[in-house]
Amino acid sequence: MVHVALITYTPDPERTIAVAARVSVSAVGISQLSEKLTPEMVKRLIDRLISSGHLSPFEHVNFTFAIEGISRVTSHQLVRHRIASYTQQSQRYVSFRKFDYVTPPTISAKAELKAKYHQTVSDAHRLYVEMLDAGIPAEDARYVLPGAAETILVMTMNARELMHVCSLRLCLKAQWEIVALFGKIKDEVEKVAPRIAAELKPKCYQLGYCDEAKSCGLFPTAAEIQAEKPSS
Amino acid sequence: MVHVALITYTPDPERTIAVAARVSVSAVGISQLSEKLTPEMVKRLIDRLISSGHLSPFEHVNFTFAIEGISRVTSHQLVRHRIASYTQQSQRYVSFRKFDYVTPPTISAKAELKAKYHQTVSDAHRLYVEMLDAGIPAEDARYVLPGAAETILVMTMNARELMHVCSLRLCLKAQWEIVALFGKIKDEVEKVAPRIAAELKPKCYQLGYCDEAKSCGLFPTAAEIQAEKPSS
Amino acid sequence: MVHVALITYTPDPERTIAVAARVSVSAVGISQLSEKLTPEMVKRLIDRLISSGHLSPFEHVNFTFAIEGISRVTSHQLVRHRIASYTQQSQRYVSFRKFDYVTPPTISAKAELKAKYHQTVSDAHRLYVEMLDAGIPAEDARYVLPGAAETILVMTMNARELMHVCSLRLCLKAQWEIVALFGKIKDEVEKVAPRIAAELKPKCYQLGYCDEAKSCGLFPTAAEIQAEKPSS
Amino acid sequence: MVHVALITYTPDPERTIAVAARVSVSAVGISQLSEKLTPEMVKRLIDRLISSGHLSPFEHVNFTFAIEGISRVTSHQLVRHRIASYTQQSQRYVSFRKFDYVTPPTISAKAELKAKYHQTVSDAHRLYVEMLDAGIPAEDARYVLPGAAETILVMTMNARELMHVCSLRLCLKAQWEIVALFGKIKDEVEKVAPRIAAELKPKCYQLGYCDEAKSCGLFPTAAEIQAEKPSS
Repeated sequence: MVHVALITYTPDPERTIAVAARVSVSAVGISQLSEKLTPEMVKRLIDRLISSGHLSPFEHVNFTFAIEGISRVTSHQLVRHRIASYTQQSQRYVSFRKFDYVTPPTISAKAELKAKYHQTVSDAHRLYVEMLDAGIPAEDARYVLPGAAETILVMTMNARELMHVCSLRLCLKAQWEIVALFGKIKDEVEKVAPRIAAELKPKCYQLGYCDEAKSCGLFPTAAEIQAEKPSS
Repeated sequence: MVHVALITYTPDPERTIAVAARVSVSAVGISQLSEKLTPEMVKRLIDRLISSGHLSPFEHVNFTFAIEGISRVTSHQLVRHRIASYTQQSQRYVSFRKFDYVTPPTISAKAELKAKYHQTVSDAHRLYVEMLDAGIPAEDARYVLPGAAETILVMTMNARELMHVCSLRLCLKAQWEIVALFGKIKDEVEKVAPRIAAELKPKCYQLGYCDEAKSCGLFPTAAEIQAEKPSS
Repeated sequence: MVHVALITYTPDPERTIAVAARVSVSAVGISQLSEKLTPEMVKRLIDRLISSGHLSPFEHVNFTFAIEGISRVTSHQLVRHRIASYTQQSQRYVSFRKFDYVTPPTISAKAELKAKYHQTVSDAHRLYVEMLDAGIPAEDARYVLPGAAETILVMTMNARELMHVCSLRLCLKAQWEIVALFGKIKDEVEKVAPRIAAELKPKCYQLGYCDEAKSCGLFPTAAEIQAEKPSS
Repeated sequence: MVHVALITYTPDPERTIAVAARVSVSAVGISQLSEKLTPEMVKRLIDRLISSGHLSPFEHVNFTFAIEGISRVTSHQLVRHRIASYTQQSQRYVSFRKFDYVTPPTISAKAELKAKYHQTVSDAHRLYVEMLDAGIPAEDARYVLPGAAETILVMTMNARELMHVCSLRLCLKAQWEIVALFGKIKDEVEKVAPRIAAELKPKCYQLGYCDEAKSCGLFPTAAEIQAEKPSS
């Protein structure tokens, strides 16, 4: 099961954003700017950056997460976000004699399918080990392993990109495992940067409507809003 | 099996690079620059850019490839290259009732393992179809599919990044399937931009030595070069 | 004065986007997909991508522009957009014995200031040439040149990023010279890809409101919308 | 004159790199990996990453610098490095009634030119202030300001990109002011991450030769190496 730990991050993240933001509109030097910033000013500045969409100062803050227990199905989606750094456990260099895998809840819910799923996945892993023992390199034996196979990675992402990715991946129309992953990522950010965590939310909050074909119910779709308007 | 087709690309690629390169060192306008460029000048300019490592003009040329028949093992590696654009066949939205998969040559070479591999992979696909029939969404059923499952994608990459990626992925120490993929990509570029294709080669050609732990034989490793030097 | 020419681009841009988009949701290969696409289907697909915010297929289309006659004030802003490729005329390697510069309309409008502006800028250029003649390298002499100095560059940007950048830079609150630049860029795209050009517009069109402190009048600000709502 | 201060950075940078690197080749979880890492192991791991060119783990470490006293000539070059985040003092929103500027040493060295340079630059600033007083917006008045005008910015760059940028910008053939800037950046990194700072050096150290047209003397050019070889 997905487990996320924040292993390191830019210290004093909200203040760092505020200092950067002030640089762009101030005539004085950075050390002076920094000294004069009270917590109340930091808060107000961040509110203003958010409401005006001036998000570039958020790039100066980075979060590094240890992510464990996600399937390779999900890691393949995750690494499509290009403005981030990833180091992933290699199926080329690591031999997985011990094997953990993810079971989707829709499958767990059906006892008979669940049993077959576990059997099939275990059979695949058994053949994987047999191939290793027969001298097949791990990088080739892994072709038989299922997308369900768990992986581990370290991901560093800045606060601006994290806001963008969460706008897509906290949407309930996203794939369930990646929604869960970013839910836990948000929990971790919450502990050290609550003001930033408050901005980690699905895109509908910014749009004011749902741009998916069918809404989860949180916001109406653009078409539904149109339909509700009184004709005049 | 991997199949690559160049579906579109920046027209007149080598001339485009030469025009861009001249802009940086010329006092006259771009239309004038362009008119005066003979094929011989284009060739000389590109030679000089390569030998001096001034590669930014190569970014103005893009190649768009249709890539079919690679495993998801390999597509997961491929999309780690972040300076490129990818559109990949979705295992969320597409149901794979027909199923193609890749078999590594080391497995094909051993008849008994090969038979077991095909059996195991076929069993996994049979359960996948059974789950679809039982109402499991494709995005969940796919967890049982092996990394061997074939995928399709469209990739756009500029010539500079293509040179960089080939420096890593044409190295024989890279994973065999991705080496084959970039070999075919090079073949496609060769047809329309031979001068650029000539620069698609493993990193050892630029370094003058092999920086892997053990050389494939093309170039000696740095340690081997050091050892060969006569003591004085 | 700013002059923009589209020097090259991905051929058949709208069809390229449609082919890429279909790959992600189709079970069949790319050559088959491509054959079956009628112009009407291309149009419908692009409409759907836009309305659902699925913009990644637009990355497969690139435009390369020759940009002349913008000030270095503006080129400094332009190159802050990082998802693009630039080759710029170098003030290190080129000696500008001939000198063109931009005059902001607010200055042109005041005859006396305009005269002083031209005098001051010309004095700076005269010293620049004197320094060159005295053996100062061009890369140092240029320190005296004004931000008004004209520059030339080649820029390659993909359609998705172009839509994003126009959302910011076609806003009338952006700096006048960069608004003019992207207006001309849009004109060039219009000639070869009208459907894409139609999406090159300020962010307020997507938001449905103005997120600047004060609106240009096209859309009300979020605060104004709030104020208009009847209390209930 | 250029002044650089490291305002924040990823805590325990070298250990962070080592933890990330081990994830890719280990079968155990991240917390276990982290516990077992001794300083000696961190050192050895980083040495091995460097010698093998496996630099992606260095991306997990970010440095945020306050940069003051560089000319806009140099900031325009600096922001061309796209894998970094910048927040720069705006000439649109800030009125520079006080004005600092950079004088290149080649100009300072010639008393007569130096005097003319200061006169011309001061005249430009005087007109700038006069235009502000006449109601010209700062964003337009600035067109008269010279490239020498000082600017302030906050830059965040990861260790991998910093190594790449230094390979280009610590080369003595780079522009003197940007060489000075990255020299000070290296000094700042030295204080908190000496092992990383040791890798901030011009590209010739990795290549083993100079790829510029003429060498500064540190390494011979490729052509010179070729010429030295005994014919056999």
